[in-house]
Amino acid sequence: MRCFWDEQQRLHAPATEFFNGALHPAAEHPGRVDSILSPIGPTETPQDHGLEPILAAHDPAYVEFLRTAHAEWLAAGRAGDALPYAFPVQRRKMALDRIDARLGRYSYDTCTPIGPGTWEAGYWAAQTGLSALAAVQAGANAFALTRPPGHHAGPDYMGGYSYLNTAAVCALSAGQRAAILDVDYHHGNGTQDILAERQGIHFASIHADPRHDYPFFWGHADESGGNLLNLPLPRGTDWRSYEPALVRSLEWLSEGSPELLIVSFGADTYAGDPISHFALETGDYTRMARHIAELGLPTLIVMEGGYAIEALGANVANFLSGF
Amino acid sequence: MRCFWDEQQRLHAPATEFFNGALHPAAEHPGRVDSILSPIGPTETPQDHGLEPILAAHDPAYVEFLRTAHAEWLAAGRAGDALPYAFPVQRRKMALDRIDARLGRYSYDTCTPIGPGTWEAGYWAAQTGLSALAAVQAGANAFALTRPPGHHAGPDYMGGYSYLNTAAVCALSAGQRAAILDVDYHHGNGTQDILAERQGIHFASIHADPRHDYPFFWGHADESGGNLLNLPLPRGTDWRSYEPALVRSLEWLSEGSPELLIVSFGADTYAGDPISHFALETGDYTRMARHIAELGLPTLIVMEGGYAIEALGANVANFLSGF
Repeated sequence: MRCFWDEQQRLHAPATEFFNGALHPAAEHPGRVDSILSPIGPTETPQDHGLEPILAAHDPAYVEFLRTAHAEWLAAGRAGDALPYAFPVQRRKMALDRIDARLGRYSYDTCTPIGPGTWEAGYWAAQTGLSALAAVQAGANAFALTRPPGHHAGPDYMGGYSYLNTAAVCALSAGQRAAILDVDYHHGNGTQDILAERQGIHFASIHADPRHDYPFFWGHADESGGNLLNLPLPRGTDWRSYEPALVRSLEWLSEGSPELLIVSFGADTYAGDPISHFALETGDYTRMARHIAELGLPTLIVMEGGYAIEALGANVANFLSGF
Repeated sequence: MRCFWDEQQRLHAPATEFFNGALHPAAEHPGRVDSILSPIGPTETPQDHGLEPILAAHDPAYVEFLRTAHAEWLAAGRAGDALPYAFPVQRRKMALDRIDARLGRYSYDTCTPIGPGTWEAGYWAAQTGLSALAAVQAGANAFALTRPPGHHAGPDYMGGYSYLNTAAVCALSAGQRAAILDVDYHHGNGTQDILAERQGIHFASIHADPRHDYPFFWGHADESGGNLLNLPLPRGTDWRSYEPALVRSLEWLSEGSPELLIVSFGADTYAGDPISHFALETGDYTRMARHIAELGLPTLIVMEGGYAIEALGANVANFLSGF
């Protein structure tokens, strides 16, 4: 397993996020990667593949917004990280000048701050994924240690700590028929929205039921069909009840005859995760990986969520060891 | 001019709102009415017209949400006022259990908190409007001192400090052909959305250009046609540039041959308003009212915004004196 990481991803260092009526310390912070870097061993530094593969998954106006939003925020006289507060529930196209309007236009929550280094970190997360993809296409399975995560970022929106959708960027620029399996605790709504009209790429997501868990508005069981499969599971799900959903997802994904598998891997399905409610144990991640490896496909693993810092490295290392 | 007010409207007393990346003291607080009550003289207490007229303007599921949201918030283990943090940018119909999901589903900003008394206050604001409407239909012009305001509340959403849209509730339950003129600093997006498919009722709004001012996503100049007229004006607008837009609005409204005029009156067009950027002076409100009175229609005035507490009473009294 070749591992890729770029230090520029540390430049995204949000202070707070707003939810449940109050500001809280940001759960998705650079410290997460320190937990992972030591157990996975040496990493390779990614190459710069430029903007073009990013624009295969994201609207150019959204990408330009991400590049300039924090400067606009400062120019509006604000300090700290940029966060939205009003949202265009109708999604009508319109000319919006004010940074607050554009923040709301290009996001769906108040948990995804844009700081001075967010663009660079997100850009290098995508490049880390693309370099790992090149390694996979050169014959080795590869792990892209990416943060901020990507799977909540849609064609023209950020949310859920995600800005650029590395998994979707890689799937759309692979030049091979890719399939994406999302095993993060939370539904991969951004990936789903990016792939919704790309019939060639199958997307399966196993996640907490959005009736009670974030992102709430995507990933319901009835959002399956065509190239999408959503398997929402109840809180408290342990390996015994997780495994059948995984097996079903893998069978369904293989029906699309993929040439390449991309795994959006979140370790927030772990029993000890502070913001999630599944009950997988560290050893279960090796079992999960063995099932996935049985597909026999060249596999790119992209890091998504996982917030139990003390166990995060072990959970990731156990997952990678199963390949 | 008969004036209506109900003390139960004080039960909505939000502590904070979230915008520009931080929590701020709520601008729309019960102290606003103290500024108004003294200069307008004695008020009448409204009668209870029940839920039926409210349901003429609002979705029943939304009304039930408003009634129960704060209890659900407490049941989820939260304290203080309920505020949303994630928003369904696609507006797809879905079953949502969690209070946070339902808060996002039924609102479009993080400035509109639901506290323990919000439902009662909003309900009595609507009843205050309906009782003032009855006074108008009995032959006198009337002023409904309503708070929280209503014009940002849509068929199934709250926002902009608004929960129930008193102006729209009155227009739809009047049993006469009503027209609504909105002269608040901010676009009356909720009223527009409620009336969008009700061709009998003309709605004209004069407001700050949403390209740079809240609510950003509604009230652009191209949202005119049919029964809607939007006249966005630049920041710094004073009486000289406001008056022609008012005259044009009144001419357009009269083309619909209304039998009744409802004015959504906000005093946040005042030069000293702390959250707005027009430049009307206290004396201009009498001039504004005289133009409106020239239509010769039975007129119901509903209070919307206005946050310059020290001048608010004088601005309202000057407006009412013009009739």
